Amino acid sequence: MIEKVVSGGVTSAQGFRAAAVACGLKQSGKLDLAVVYSERECTAAGVFTRNQVAAAPVVLDRGVLAAGRDHIRGVVANAGNANACTGAGGLAAARAVQQAAAVALGCRPEQLFVLSTGVIGVPLPVDKIEAGLRIVSKGLSPDNGAAAQAIMTTDTRPKQLAVRVALPGGTVTVGGMAKGAGMIHPDMATMLAVLTTDAAVPAGSLQALLHQAVDQSFNCISVDGDTSTNDTVLLLANGASGVAVENEAALAHLAEGLNAVCTELARLIVADGEGASKFVEIQVSGASGVGKARAVAATIATSPLVKTALAGGDPNWGRILAAAGRAGVQLDAGRLALWVSNPGAPALQLVKEGASTGYVEADAAAVFARPEIVIRLDLGQGQAQATMWTCDLTHDYVSINADYRT
Amino acid sequence: MIEKVVSGGVTSAQGFRAAAVACGLKQSGKLDLAVVYSERECTAAGVFTRNQVAAAPVVLDRGVLAAGRDHIRGVVANAGNANACTGAGGLAAARAVQQAAAVALGCRPEQLFVLSTGVIGVPLPVDKIEAGLRIVSKGLSPDNGAAAQAIMTTDTRPKQLAVRVALPGGTVTVGGMAKGAGMIHPDMATMLAVLTTDAAVPAGSLQALLHQAVDQSFNCISVDGDTSTNDTVLLLANGASGVAVENEAALAHLAEGLNAVCTELARLIVADGEGASKFVEIQVSGASGVGKARAVAATIATSPLVKTALAGGDPNWGRILAAAGRAGVQLDAGRLALWVSNPGAPALQLVKEGASTGYVEADAAAVFARPEIVIRLDLGQGQAQATMWTCDLTHDYVSINADYRT
Repeated sequence: MIEKVVSGGVTSAQGFRAAAVACGLKQSGKLDLAVVYSERECTAAGVFTRNQVAAAPVVLDRGVLAAGRDHIRGVVANAGNANACTGAGGLAAARAVQQAAAVALGCRPEQLFVLSTGVIGVPLPVDKIEAGLRIVSKGLSPDNGAAAQAIMTTDTRPKQLAVRVALPGGTVTVGGMAKGAGMIHPDMATMLAVLTTDAAVPAGSLQALLHQAVDQSFNCISVDGDTSTNDTVLLLANGASGVAVENEAALAHLAEGLNAVCTELARLIVADGEGASKFVEIQVSGASGVGKARAVAATIATSPLVKTALAGGDPNWGRILAAAGRAGVQLDAGRLALWVSNPGAPALQLVKEGASTGYVEADAAAVFARPEIVIRLDLGQGQAQATMWTCDLTHDYVSINADYRT
Repeated sequence: MIEKVVSGGVTSAQGFRAAAVACGLKQSGKLDLAVVYSERECTAAGVFTRNQVAAAPVVLDRGVLAAGRDHIRGVVANAGNANACTGAGGLAAARAVQQAAAVALGCRPEQLFVLSTGVIGVPLPVDKIEAGLRIVSKGLSPDNGAAAQAIMTTDTRPKQLAVRVALPGGTVTVGGMAKGAGMIHPDMATMLAVLTTDAAVPAGSLQALLHQAVDQSFNCISVDGDTSTNDTVLLLANGASGVAVENEAALAHLAEGLNAVCTELARLIVADGEGASKFVEIQVSGASGVGKARAVAATIATSPLVKTALAGGDPNWGRILAAAGRAGVQLDAGRLALWVSNPGAPALQLVKEGASTGYVEADAAAVFARPEIVIRLDLGQGQAQATMWTCDLTHDYVSINADYRT
């Protein structure tokens, strides 16, 4: 059974503390450096961007996991600078941050992950971060709010959540924080998430848990189809609850909790997508394979023509079918069926056998006028299905991104 | 030798005539129905969308080519309605237009191609087109301007061109018209082009000529990554010049002329992309294969983050490298080099070995402030290269597409 923790987040699980400070990376003077720290050693798992131009902290963190997954203590995360495309100096800077954090926190460097998000191609101001770490390490507390704020870039609100999961051996907590907003696409994007649990989980099982959770949450969202150099999801399990999760039944229960946290964080990211005014769920059913359903859903979810139509509240379903048609999946246009709805309301069928059902235009416009829209396309070729979450493409998206650096 | 024809277009080649009329498909009352007609039978070639949701006229025209490529007389094209996603009724409507045009023009239906562009999913008003065909068929003339206007949708200007090619056997002319604007991507988009020549070319050779020309022109452009249900490029050769083009040398010369026409039409389409304020050439060099170079160039050319940065005049090269990194091509980030320039001006190197060269920001901003920008990314892994043409993503793109139907 999963129960949501009121005001939960990355420190809801026992034994985790966090803090944040403004160290001068954001020109706005807002919080930009966060630490999440466990009072005891954790097993850890990570999923990273598949972008071939991986940022320095991604390279560093892959090394941390490779060197040892069962003695991790925490995460240092900064916004305002991605430390990406910074060459050999970038990796040295990430190591310097890791080293300074270890000194400030009183652990070994290889027990810490480093996360960065923000502008690409600018050397990381290590001195500012070092000064910030000396302050932030003294402020660790069970309050999770500041950390979730410090990792924000173009996010308009912090994203955090925790759930309690009742297991045979006792209750454990799973919590986390994430940031997203732009550059969001399957295989993740400028998306960072730090997840924590006080369950005791062997490192191997933890990695498997995280992979399946990411696959059905963060890898199902798209804001603009751009994947990032920095995407990272980390999961730390410190065992502070005293509940060991080792057998399959307990792992399955914990997975439910982890999936709930990841799915909600993923939805929060899309809902807060850059300039987004609408939250859209794309369901593709009737495919002859899950991969095909995913490909069609992803192509619809990233189509600029579909997304601008959504922004305009225009039920221009021809663009949805046209996007499906270029997904690289063989389709029989004459078998396509399309429904639209708002969550919880009955669906309106717009397309049957590839052509209009003769629906009433005002009914379709009413569905598209609301802030949450569900689009279901049935391919009529099999039983497989997939779901993606996306948002609309608005004037504000262009404004935000036409002038992000300056 | 290739010589541009002043005010040239689809009727510059001998023996071709054209006409257009406003038959009521465009709510604006502007020209929306065009005919291109040859006084004698032509060999013909066609390249069509690979979108699995192909519009009725695409299905019809594939059938026309399959039935016989050497007795074609002309093309009927309408804007204002794409006759796509219109089910079995859509194909019947396309056939009805073909039939009515044959009666009006005095030829057989299977001698005519049908093209449609405009809104998807709305039944084609065949009666309006039939009435229009009775008028337009009486107005055929060597003037090509009206036809190029009639096929426009969100295009802001007609696109047409012709060149003369001197061959050993005499001079031939190659001309054409195109429409584009939105939904433009490799494998074409809501892109229609009608090309004509008065050379006499066997149908098989003509199809090969057209394929290679499209591959290096219309398939190298992207406005928004959306490919369309209707994309079609047709080439008609009527032999009216009396110059037979059969041997390899003559075919190569004619190819040069055809390529010049297609490349210029493709560039005109991008320059007139929906809301475009900048014309951008993406050159990817140093790849280990042409396919890889193309994949990287296409991913950069369609990245919303790159395209909005271009709109803002922001030389945010990190987004260019990040887009390259997610193109599905294995890269060594430490070998990447990037230059930007304006056509004809010296290039400014922004990135060397994956990191900033320490260039002067104002110099980069000056390059990105101009309306024509060349971006060259070298992957440092081989000798292959590819070029794509694209445009920026602006507020106007969103405005045009958020409210296209209504």
